[in-house]
Amino acid sequence: MESIIDSANATAVERMTEARPVLTGLGKALDLIPGMHENLLLHAGPPIAWEQASGPLRGALIGALLFERRARDEGEAERLIVSGKIQLAPCHHHSAVGPMAGVISPSMAVYVVENKTHGNRAFSNLNEGYGKVLRYGAYSRDVQNKLHWMHEAMAPVLGAAIRACAGVDIRALLAEALHMGDEGHNRNKAGSLLFTRQLAPYIARFAPDPLTAGAVIEELGENALSVLNPVMAACKAMADAGHGVENSTIVTTMARNGTEFGIRVSGLGERWFTSPCPQPVGLYFPGFSAEDGNPDIGDSTITETAGLGAFAMAAAPAIVTFVSGTPQDALNATLEMYEITAAEHSAFTIPQLDFRGTPVGIDLRAVVETGITPRVNTGIAHREAGVGQIGAGLVRPPLALFNEALVTFAENYGF
Amino acid sequence: MESIIDSANATAVERMTEARPVLTGLGKALDLIPGMHENLLLHAGPPIAWEQASGPLRGALIGALLFERRARDEGEAERLIVSGKIQLAPCHHHSAVGPMAGVISPSMAVYVVENKTHGNRAFSNLNEGYGKVLRYGAYSRDVQNKLHWMHEAMAPVLGAAIRACAGVDIRALLAEALHMGDEGHNRNKAGSLLFTRQLAPYIARFAPDPLTAGAVIEELGENALSVLNPVMAACKAMADAGHGVENSTIVTTMARNGTEFGIRVSGLGERWFTSPCPQPVGLYFPGFSAEDGNPDIGDSTITETAGLGAFAMAAAPAIVTFVSGTPQDALNATLEMYEITAAEHSAFTIPQLDFRGTPVGIDLRAVVETGITPRVNTGIAHREAGVGQIGAGLVRPPLALFNEALVTFAENYGF
Repeated sequence: MESIIDSANATAVERMTEARPVLTGLGKALDLIPGMHENLLLHAGPPIAWEQASGPLRGALIGALLFERRARDEGEAERLIVSGKIQLAPCHHHSAVGPMAGVISPSMAVYVVENKTHGNRAFSNLNEGYGKVLRYGAYSRDVQNKLHWMHEAMAPVLGAAIRACAGVDIRALLAEALHMGDEGHNRNKAGSLLFTRQLAPYIARFAPDPLTAGAVIEELGENALSVLNPVMAACKAMADAGHGVENSTIVTTMARNGTEFGIRVSGLGERWFTSPCPQPVGLYFPGFSAEDGNPDIGDSTITETAGLGAFAMAAAPAIVTFVSGTPQDALNATLEMYEITAAEHSAFTIPQLDFRGTPVGIDLRAVVETGITPRVNTGIAHREAGVGQIGAGLVRPPLALFNEALVTFAENYGF
Repeated sequence: MESIIDSANATAVERMTEARPVLTGLGKALDLIPGMHENLLLHAGPPIAWEQASGPLRGALIGALLFERRARDEGEAERLIVSGKIQLAPCHHHSAVGPMAGVISPSMAVYVVENKTHGNRAFSNLNEGYGKVLRYGAYSRDVQNKLHWMHEAMAPVLGAAIRACAGVDIRALLAEALHMGDEGHNRNKAGSLLFTRQLAPYIARFAPDPLTAGAVIEELGENALSVLNPVMAACKAMADAGHGVENSTIVTTMARNGTEFGIRVSGLGERWFTSPCPQPVGLYFPGFSAEDGNPDIGDSTITETAGLGAFAMAAAPAIVTFVSGTPQDALNATLEMYEITAAEHSAFTIPQLDFRGTPVGIDLRAVVETGITPRVNTGIAHREAGVGQIGAGLVRPPLALFNEALVTFAENYGF
């Protein structure tokens, strides 16, 4: 029994680590995302209805309908959703992932990441930068203007650059970024520079004019999270490669919708295990405190699922100025995660640990046996729609989720 | 006596660390470098004549005269120098620094770095990237073609971009790069990306056409040493700010010409103390070994002089894949340098050491008392002109240099 599961887990993790996700294109969600349609909005985390949605998710759904010109104001947007005319579905059900609220609407531009090893694809939206942005539930005129500029001016140029450079190997980019102080989730500073470095020459060549070229390069280069969304799509492509292995207890999804934290397990198909979201513990921007914070939200936990983020924190000692703690805490975070993972990553290594591979492949059994839950680095959203990011910190999913999943696993397989 | 020296040293180091070097321009050496003239070639390290020059320095001097169209071949170039028609002088005598052979000729483009705190300026040439390049003594047609492209196509665009972006704050760039795994000498990967990120939007806007824009951005972004030369000029501006403080035993220059290693001391004016150059110990590229290596060469030791390079190696654990050793060795390198330095840098901090400032301000007395000589990260040149880089490693200047300088210091000041 143990050996059957161990062997299934080895297969699942090997598929995750051998996946080679390459960013190959950018286009309209409606044209690219499987199952996307005119009346569908995708969102982060497990399934949720409007009535249970938190402030930031509601704000982002409203903002997306304003962006789509399906609604003229908040009230109309809400009525469209409540009436069922507009449907909601998790990004994860459509091979996609989105940071924070993670809302993807039909005409939004999305990155296409292809796993060259196994052939599956994954998608993510464009990163809007910091401040008042849709993914934190902001939907004011400024937010709308920025979204329109990104989709009308930036996306065509970016798409042309991605195609012209024959794709961006995101696994190679992440491997290099981990040697440059990134952990791939909250700290994507080096990764975003590597991304900008690769695309900028093509942007300069293919933009319609020099001013647009300059603006697009600046947008990518100045946003230390510009590569986060392609990275998340890459992690989704890797995690999906490890999903659906019979007898495997490897966690292949961790995601939050701002109300519930959900996980899925390789050997348990599409079933979600959910539990109320905990609040992150971390550093708040001046003027904000824990009581302003929303429960944890976003699909970006796909990075931890794939062996990055808090799991790779030892590589990113400078992150502690952002999420609290000391460089030793960052080292300990990674060391602790080896306790609950099935393997060390063959592509992602940590110089600070003598180039040891990052801990990868969360084993449900190990979490339950040790009581150590996965660590997650995260941004903190204001609980009200429209305010935006108010901090960053650390969070762990509730242990109960893993207990429940393991019980189901045992029942399912009769072990 | 001790307190007079301590206080002089505190002044010298404070001037070094409070210097704020900003890259403000790029132009022709003849127009910008003080004392530059039509018949002068600058080179790395202490003064040297053609007869004593090593292969890589000779090759670079020949290459510069070919580039200047002052000679049609090697023989003519050599005759011009031996006859005295072309004079040689250290970069350091002209507020300049150059990596490896460090040859700067009158019509070469040079970066201008201004120390905004104290007003002094420093200069360095353009970085040519890896492989067969002038700074390693290569001067073939390919090398010449690359130099002409850099000076005719790239330099005007780069100069316009530097002016348009209102300068690049190199101290701030280095502070950030140290949190991204650079040490500022042999590893300038993050710094070169930060440099490219800042200039690329302006290059896109000001290049004469999109193809040139793309090529210039690619040249900066693909060369992980593109920022090395502005960094060296910045370190020179910082070190010069600490030079000339009476009673100070702080080392303000360390430089090698491929034959001799030379140092200068804050309180001892323009006098060089020199000794034969040791050979670096490190990793050789496939097909090369220690017997192919030239003795150590270049002005890039200005980075260690200013508290970077091997002194900041704890920040750059991934560098060991390039220069040999383990991440623990990298940590130890920095820890050892605290033994011989007068201060911890206020601007350059190391996350891995809980954000401790880098060791800065080599105190002659401490070197002599402890017998610990400064560590230097370095590239290794082939001993024959024209071959290029064959490895990278570590080197230390001979202790005798420091003994001699301290004896002179004592005689000079009558301590």
